[in-house]
Amino acid sequence: MTYCLAIKVNDGLVFASDSRAGAGVDGASVYSKMYWFELHEDRLVVLLASGSIATTQAVVSRIRRDLGNPGAKHSLNSAAYLFEAATYVGEISVRAQKQQLASMQRSGLSTEATFILGGQIQGQLHDLYMIYPQGNYIMASIDTPYLQIGETKYGKPVLVRMITPETSLEDAARCALVSLDSTMRSNISVGPPMELAIFERDVFVLKHHLSLNSASPFYGALQQQWGRGIRAAFDGLPRFDWETGGDT
Amino acid sequence: MTYCLAIKVNDGLVFASDSRAGAGVDGASVYSKMYWFELHEDRLVVLLASGSIATTQAVVSRIRRDLGNPGAKHSLNSAAYLFEAATYVGEISVRAQKQQLASMQRSGLSTEATFILGGQIQGQLHDLYMIYPQGNYIMASIDTPYLQIGETKYGKPVLVRMITPETSLEDAARCALVSLDSTMRSNISVGPPMELAIFERDVFVLKHHLSLNSASPFYGALQQQWGRGIRAAFDGLPRFDWETGGDT
Repeated sequence: MTYCLAIKVNDGLVFASDSRAGAGVDGASVYSKMYWFELHEDRLVVLLASGSIATTQAVVSRIRRDLGNPGAKHSLNSAAYLFEAATYVGEISVRAQKQQLASMQRSGLSTEATFILGGQIQGQLHDLYMIYPQGNYIMASIDTPYLQIGETKYGKPVLVRMITPETSLEDAARCALVSLDSTMRSNISVGPPMELAIFERDVFVLKHHLSLNSASPFYGALQQQWGRGIRAAFDGLPRFDWETGGDT
Repeated sequence: MTYCLAIKVNDGLVFASDSRAGAGVDGASVYSKMYWFELHEDRLVVLLASGSIATTQAVVSRIRRDLGNPGAKHSLNSAAYLFEAATYVGEISVRAQKQQLASMQRSGLSTEATFILGGQIQGQLHDLYMIYPQGNYIMASIDTPYLQIGETKYGKPVLVRMITPETSLEDAARCALVSLDSTMRSNISVGPPMELAIFERDVFVLKHHLSLNSASPFYGALQQQWGRGIRAAFDGLPRFDWETGGDT
């Protein structure tokens, strides 16, 4: 399993992903699920992936090959709009899935992969796209300024409560880490290290990229403080009538 | 959809459930999913249900009929141990599902229902059982002192962080409400009112039973305080190096 999320705020984008991969609990291994690319200076694109690693790797390899090939019909550099980049990745993904489909179906396995693509092309707004295995996609919105793929449910409540377009990049990054941490505590198929990337609007290099595991002092402090904060929030909840001497 | 949970602490048991039922978003209605029964004074049993309402209602009707029938071979009153009550409910459930199976399968619908049964029989410890559609069951444990059925993921992280056997009944009840509230915010198929029942160990009547909706002052205060507490917890999280003037 996997849990990746991306948050779109006014100031930019935050990307976060776990790194557990493999065929079930007895085949767990560590794979990064976050990719970015050497692109023209007018653009930045980050990709998060869940699903079949074979499909994901085929898609990323193809994206890299097209970037290195001046004759390629389409590439992340040739896209005039971010949605064209999403269309391009969706098409590559569908093709990569199709190539393995027959043999994988015979084994009862899925070739599907889902992506989050985020970034900005100069002169346009930064944005996020979720690219479905079918190649189509949806964008984040003002009301739902985040996208999640993989094991999305455990980590959703904190996003629902905290994230608005006005949230700062750093607060969005902390929220993404709490969302990942909550998921890892509830589902062992989502595991460390956690990767975090922060993209500031109109600055076409990644502002920050971190890889955090349980030995990272920052992650340890975050876990501890969040635990204390939740405990304090809990202790501040109202008493029932019968606890304060009133009627039930 | 449904979300029900029960928590087992040293002092007793807490049961909580949402009340949304129906066939999809255009057929939503309100159904209680929490049942308790007029039993002998030496016992208390509470049942939470998710899945097919027809199956649930058939099971509850059968339990009530057996209680009113002195000649019934088994009933919640005849069980000498709580696990016998769980076995009995599991058997009734399997039978109820089987009766409708052929016609439901033809319509592509499920007859499955899952139950949480909790309570105590005098002289024994209080306990919780999750009864699967197949009629078998598992108990809560010291390491996992709660059981959940239905839409369980959104509301799990707060349970993982807060509940231990030493938690007070009232704190467990507040935690159950937060867990339900988090779920309702993330999934519209889980909806109010929320029912809450508190059973104090060795006292064979329900200590408290509440039905709360968004108009209930206590629930409003709980939502507001939790929101504030989470915001404070969030504001207390550590800063990144680059926010405090250090290196990235």
